[in-house]
Amino acid sequence: MDGDSAAASGIDVPDQLWDSDRAEVARSLLTSGVRCFAANGFHATTTRDITSAVGLSPGALYVHFRSKEHVLFEIVHTGHRRSLEVLEEVEPAVDAREHLRTLVRRFVAWHAHHHVVARVCQYELAALSDQHYEEIRELRRRSTATFQDVVKRGVAERSFADVDVHRVVRAVLSLGVDLVRWYRSDGADSPQQLGEFYADLALGMVTGARP
Amino acid sequence: MDGDSAAASGIDVPDQLWDSDRAEVARSLLTSGVRCFAANGFHATTTRDITSAVGLSPGALYVHFRSKEHVLFEIVHTGHRRSLEVLEEVEPAVDAREHLRTLVRRFVAWHAHHHVVARVCQYELAALSDQHYEEIRELRRRSTATFQDVVKRGVAERSFADVDVHRVVRAVLSLGVDLVRWYRSDGADSPQQLGEFYADLALGMVTGARP
Repeated sequence: MDGDSAAASGIDVPDQLWDSDRAEVARSLLTSGVRCFAANGFHATTTRDITSAVGLSPGALYVHFRSKEHVLFEIVHTGHRRSLEVLEEVEPAVDAREHLRTLVRRFVAWHAHHHVVARVCQYELAALSDQHYEEIRELRRRSTATFQDVVKRGVAERSFADVDVHRVVRAVLSLGVDLVRWYRSDGADSPQQLGEFYADLALGMVTGARP
Repeated sequence: MDGDSAAASGIDVPDQLWDSDRAEVARSLLTSGVRCFAANGFHATTTRDITSAVGLSPGALYVHFRSKEHVLFEIVHTGHRRSLEVLEEVEPAVDAREHLRTLVRRFVAWHAHHHVVARVCQYELAALSDQHYEEIRELRRRSTATFQDVVKRGVAERSFADVDVHRVVRAVLSLGVDLVRWYRSDGADSPQQLGEFYADLALGMVTGARP
């Protein structure tokens, strides 16, 4: 259990993550929001914390966002859309095993590469308004469905064991999500290496243990 | 990705978790601390939040604890000691597969049963003082070592595939830890059922996928 979550210092939040039609100031406020929320949590972060990190007064936030909760929502919504995109652009493979491997590899690599944003996406959901939370839930359902579809297919084709699809997919996603707690960019595994490794593990999970 | 982390309401933190030589008031403050930290995070919780939930004034906390950080430390230390105990009391099995299954079953069931305390143990480490954090790190090293020892043995005996022990153990623990994010006592899986299911998954992870 090494590589524990530490204060998110010296972290990179790629500017390209944000919608390009957003003003530069809005994008820098989103990046600052990610850093503040990841380090101290939503509730302990003030609008002043977010704006002062980019050299602005608190009022500047309201030019671009209706509230601190709207900053959180745009971060969480963007993170979920981006990680869903890398799943939905996968072409179905001939082989269910290869298809599952590709999904896991991409999901894990995305979460490792964007582990700071992803940490906010996973740990601050309870701070969203009910309506915002419902929008995020729908994106999460779609992510889950891409995995469920291929596992169902693998079970039907007998490429996989007769696993409990709901539970095994929940576990595969859980493995991918938890790395945002401990992943560090300066650690031993690149996002791609971790993706490959977890793709192998996921295959072991759906085929069952060798005798 | 359903079963998202929600505000920790109506949660149970068993009083038996705390050392029995602690005064009843101290134990109730620890339980209140768990609930506050799990719901809002350490930084957004005041000593008044912790004491008012049990009908006391803020000053009452300092009769039993030196600071809010000491409340957190006692929670995190107790949680880590308890979850380590359930691993260290396992008698080595003749079979490495059976031994690993038992460790995973116990680790997962403990984390599911104590998911609220465990959430504080996993997500609030960055708020600990350096010295307190080092003490927790040592307990975490011992937990990890119990899993590494049996996986090393299984690899040496060829009961398992020639896996990367460090990385596969990190993944098995990650799976066990992440459930504290989404587990709910009123969900479909009891702690024991989840433990059994994850023991099977862990075996698939260390033996490698069936061809």
